[in-house]
Amino acid sequence: MYSVVVEHIYLLVTVTLVSVLQNAFFALKVEKEGKCQNIPTSVFERVCCANRNCMDAYPTFLAVMWCAGLCLNQAPAAFAGIIYLVVRQKYFIGYMGQTSQSTPGYLFGKRILFFLFSMCIVGIFNYLLVHYYGTDYKEYVETITGAASALLLIP
Amino acid sequence: MYSVVVEHIYLLVTVTLVSVLQNAFFALKVEKEGKCQNIPTSVFERVCCANRNCMDAYPTFLAVMWCAGLCLNQAPAAFAGIIYLVVRQKYFIGYMGQTSQSTPGYLFGKRILFFLFSMCIVGIFNYLLVHYYGTDYKEYVETITGAASALLLIP
Amino acid sequence: MYSVVVEHIYLLVTVTLVSVLQNAFFALKVEKEGKCQNIPTSVFERVCCANRNCMDAYPTFLAVMWCAGLCLNQAPAAFAGIIYLVVRQKYFIGYMGQTSQSTPGYLFGKRILFFLFSMCIVGIFNYLLVHYYGTDYKEYVETITGAASALLLIP
Repeated sequence: MYSVVVEHIYLLVTVTLVSVLQNAFFALKVEKEGKCQNIPTSVFERVCCANRNCMDAYPTFLAVMWCAGLCLNQAPAAFAGIIYLVVRQKYFIGYMGQTSQSTPGYLFGKRILFFLFSMCIVGIFNYLLVHYYGTDYKEYVETITGAASALLLIP
Repeated sequence: MYSVVVEHIYLLVTVTLVSVLQNAFFALKVEKEGKCQNIPTSVFERVCCANRNCMDAYPTFLAVMWCAGLCLNQAPAAFAGIIYLVVRQKYFIGYMGQTSQSTPGYLFGKRILFFLFSMCIVGIFNYLLVHYYGTDYKEYVETITGAASALLLIP
Repeated sequence: MYSVVVEHIYLLVTVTLVSVLQNAFFALKVEKEGKCQNIPTSVFERVCCANRNCMDAYPTFLAVMWCAGLCLNQAPAAFAGIIYLVVRQKYFIGYMGQTSQSTPGYLFGKRILFFLFSMCIVGIFNYLLVHYYGTDYKEYVETITGAASALLLIP
């Protein structure tokens, strides 16, 4: 019954599940640090801060990834989502590091979010073009779009 | 392939993209204020607080807007979403203002969220009515619903 | 027009609306506590902390519930969502309690999220099995899946 829907979103669902596992990992870190009483407070504060920054950006990431996957194509969106999760893991680990001068800033993964954002715009533009100029251009536009999304994945 | 899906959600996707841009604007504000060391701390605290309040309400807003758009009609939902973003921008700017006695509260945009919420309820009620009382009433119900959603947009 | 979509998601939308109402209840609690000036600060801090923990877990919950509902079946997903909301309400009330030694931890509702998570995995596995091994096994797999999801609801 649902297979026609699941076919178009299963990669996105998989990435979402991986991100949920990562969230659980972050939350367990916070809970573990909060329980130990004999560790310095700054470690707990840093873990909390890293977790907060990651959680602040999480709805934005989910929304952009799903929009990109629904509007254009799920494969490149899911691939970019996986890369984003790797960057987030690095950010979290780097935030907990000892040397405070290497603390990363508030933002991370800007380039990947920008890529997903432009995928959404291309998808909507594609739809409007097909809708207003007929279906003659449809395959042409989709070929161009596919090539462009492959090109965008290089950096 | 996706055009039948994109047709029903492209306005919602557009509003989501605008909200993502706004989130990025807020996050850049926070990062900029966090870097300058010679500004008073209270400004940074106020920007942080405004950003946090906006981020706290963000998943709720997204969920309600998408539900309203999927259940009933995307055009009024996207319109209400745009108004919500304008209110949020005003809230953020007002929160950063100098005079602390004019600080807005924790909540904002209650009326718009309530409107989107009632759109969801009308949509589900509409579906149940059509499902249990046959398709004879369908166009009648949809006309009423459309008129009601137009009326709800007035204030 | 949308009734074919609404048919498969209306239970999920209902649970989402209930969770939005609960969010509004939490936010009103925070705003009310923030306004009273003659209450001890610790109460406001505790309400804030409870609200923050709930809001941190909210996007994760929404994503997992919707994925489970879309991939497998909406009825058990919505049922688990309702149970999660009950657990969250208890968590919030318990957090505001007077005795600080009974303060719950950072995490809650782990078992329900794990159930929804495994529903997603079963759904994707189901799709892949049907996709690669033909439609002969489809009804068989779906019967097994339904029984398994019913079994998972027991605890």
